[in-house]
Amino acid sequence: MRKRLGVLALSGLALLSVSGLAGATEPGAREVTAQAKGHHGPVIVGHRGAPGYRPEHTLASYELAYRQGVDWVDVDLVPTKDGQLVARHENEIGGTTDVAKHPEFANRKTTKVIDGTSFTGWFTEDFTLAELKTLRATERIPQLRPNNKIYDGRYQIATYQEVLDLTRRLGRELRRELGTYPEVKHSTYFSSIKNPTEPKLVELLKRNGLNHPKAPVIIQSFEVSNLIELSRQVRVPLLQLTSATGAPADFIAKGDPRTYADLVTPAGLKEISKYADYLGPEKAQVIPVVNGALGQPTRLVADAHQAGLKVGPYTFRNENNFLPQNLRSSANLAEYGNAFADQEAFLKAGVDGYFADHPDTALEAVKAFEGR
Amino acid sequence: MRKRLGVLALSGLALLSVSGLAGATEPGAREVTAQAKGHHGPVIVGHRGAPGYRPEHTLASYELAYRQGVDWVDVDLVPTKDGQLVARHENEIGGTTDVAKHPEFANRKTTKVIDGTSFTGWFTEDFTLAELKTLRATERIPQLRPNNKIYDGRYQIATYQEVLDLTRRLGRELRRELGTYPEVKHSTYFSSIKNPTEPKLVELLKRNGLNHPKAPVIIQSFEVSNLIELSRQVRVPLLQLTSATGAPADFIAKGDPRTYADLVTPAGLKEISKYADYLGPEKAQVIPVVNGALGQPTRLVADAHQAGLKVGPYTFRNENNFLPQNLRSSANLAEYGNAFADQEAFLKAGVDGYFADHPDTALEAVKAFEGR
Repeated sequence: MRKRLGVLALSGLALLSVSGLAGATEPGAREVTAQAKGHHGPVIVGHRGAPGYRPEHTLASYELAYRQGVDWVDVDLVPTKDGQLVARHENEIGGTTDVAKHPEFANRKTTKVIDGTSFTGWFTEDFTLAELKTLRATERIPQLRPNNKIYDGRYQIATYQEVLDLTRRLGRELRRELGTYPEVKHSTYFSSIKNPTEPKLVELLKRNGLNHPKAPVIIQSFEVSNLIELSRQVRVPLLQLTSATGAPADFIAKGDPRTYADLVTPAGLKEISKYADYLGPEKAQVIPVVNGALGQPTRLVADAHQAGLKVGPYTFRNENNFLPQNLRSSANLAEYGNAFADQEAFLKAGVDGYFADHPDTALEAVKAFEGR
Repeated sequence: MRKRLGVLALSGLALLSVSGLAGATEPGAREVTAQAKGHHGPVIVGHRGAPGYRPEHTLASYELAYRQGVDWVDVDLVPTKDGQLVARHENEIGGTTDVAKHPEFANRKTTKVIDGTSFTGWFTEDFTLAELKTLRATERIPQLRPNNKIYDGRYQIATYQEVLDLTRRLGRELRRELGTYPEVKHSTYFSSIKNPTEPKLVELLKRNGLNHPKAPVIIQSFEVSNLIELSRQVRVPLLQLTSATGAPADFIAKGDPRTYADLVTPAGLKEISKYADYLGPEKAQVIPVVNGALGQPTRLVADAHQAGLKVGPYTFRNENNFLPQNLRSSANLAEYGNAFADQEAFLKAGVDGYFADHPDTALEAVKAFEGR
């Protein structure tokens, strides 16, 4: 654990009330956290809200996740042309909005290379917030989530400020401290086009009174140098995301040969612990799928804990498409499979929480695991 | 409205805080109801909990409904052999539990005639509560709700007392007054086998301190004479359920020729208003389906309001199977159709609320209708 938080931890349990995934294993934390009202134990983060039930990253998706009982939602952030932060998984919004149906934006369609991949579509950084507000969100994976299509066209793109406002309002109503995991997307890319996310995020946190270690905010990124820089600029906890393959985009850009595999070695985890408090690995890094079934857990959870990092893998989803073959209920990839067996395996492997597209199912899995 | 409540209403707005469907149209009611925290306006009742997402009438189904934001859930009640009230839509439990897989209960399988229909299966009144507790709930309509099958086997049959305990606990957590709509099922039948539901319900309400006009309880029945009798025994509001066809079972048993159609004439509604405060009609009584589409609303809402009755029709569901043909999204009956258009039509027709299998969708329909 990075030194700053280590020192603060000495000041008592109050600190624990802010640490999402930490709530899982710190004895005493439950008594002082608001989470204890909604659920105990391993912390479930509503991944993009509750996208199993609503188009992702909409206020409706976040609200439903909070109402279902989670205390935390994951909010991916990308900038607009006029420097606002909006909640989208990608800056390319052709797949999650009705932008293609807006003739006035037909000439914004373009092709860009982002983190080494070519994308053709419409990009948030080419739209003002006012322009984006004329669009409506649509279901990203209608073939797997056909039921969500009934919500298409009902919701705007949300700003991070609107998410924070919703979080505060619902927190008061539900009488729990609710919080967000903002993720800085494509940091190197947005810096390269002189529209960096981090200064806007820092400014937003400060303006909302959220730049302190007890604030219900945990900043995430798949890149490394931006998190190191943020660890000097903000006082909220940080979370290093990793993938089962590839390398951080900032490493690639700088010619640093290290990969995500290097980051999750004991030495790599020790480095992460100098600037971050949490590790967000891809599921397969915790338990690989072998011959269509979950195999033996890796050493990652133990190694990360040894380095003082809490571990919250991504992403748990109910549909057969996202489950090992032996946990599928049928050949229909949209139908729910045995999500409980999947999640129980990771809970047994000792994770401190996880990201889930169906927060309600995940909360039940945790309850069952704890024998309540 | 029956006289007793009419008099009490003079004592001020406090009374309104208990009246579920009443919250919709009584100005001032919102300010004093806890509902206003979760949503405004027409009152959504979680029909059997949230059975779009969990096997119906389980504690998990009720809890999810409350968490999604409704303040009321509908709880059908049937008795056990030893005089406990449990939450099941029917006393025959072959279709909603795993009883058929219990060899120790194979000899309980039998055939009974209930309200004129022959049923073969297992019946709650032939089991002690302890025996019922060894069973597990299963999805009633797996062909339409295949995703709910992942919850099969996880939940017990709940007693009404357990539902009340959950309601109180969640009400404290969510800081809203939550309440139940207990429905007395097959009153004439259970009286005929000397295992009547009503005395147990009255006793339970008294024991839980819920026998007063401000208690968050509204008793429902498809029969009439039991509601009239209950109106003399309890002080909570009552709700008369009606069907688009047929007649109350107690009328049939006594040779009373009146049908449900007679009950919803202006004269019939005036009679109902003498013992009940709410009317729960079948959807088609409010808006009939004509040539596969919703037709013109009937006079029922206006007539019921004229008689002083609030109107909350049943049952709104998201799946194509339950929607008029022109609102279906595909030939797949399990897929969601345009539930919003369906519900908006009833809101426009002036209903004071309604019963919904997907409380989250219904709350969004109400929000949209109110232009929030």
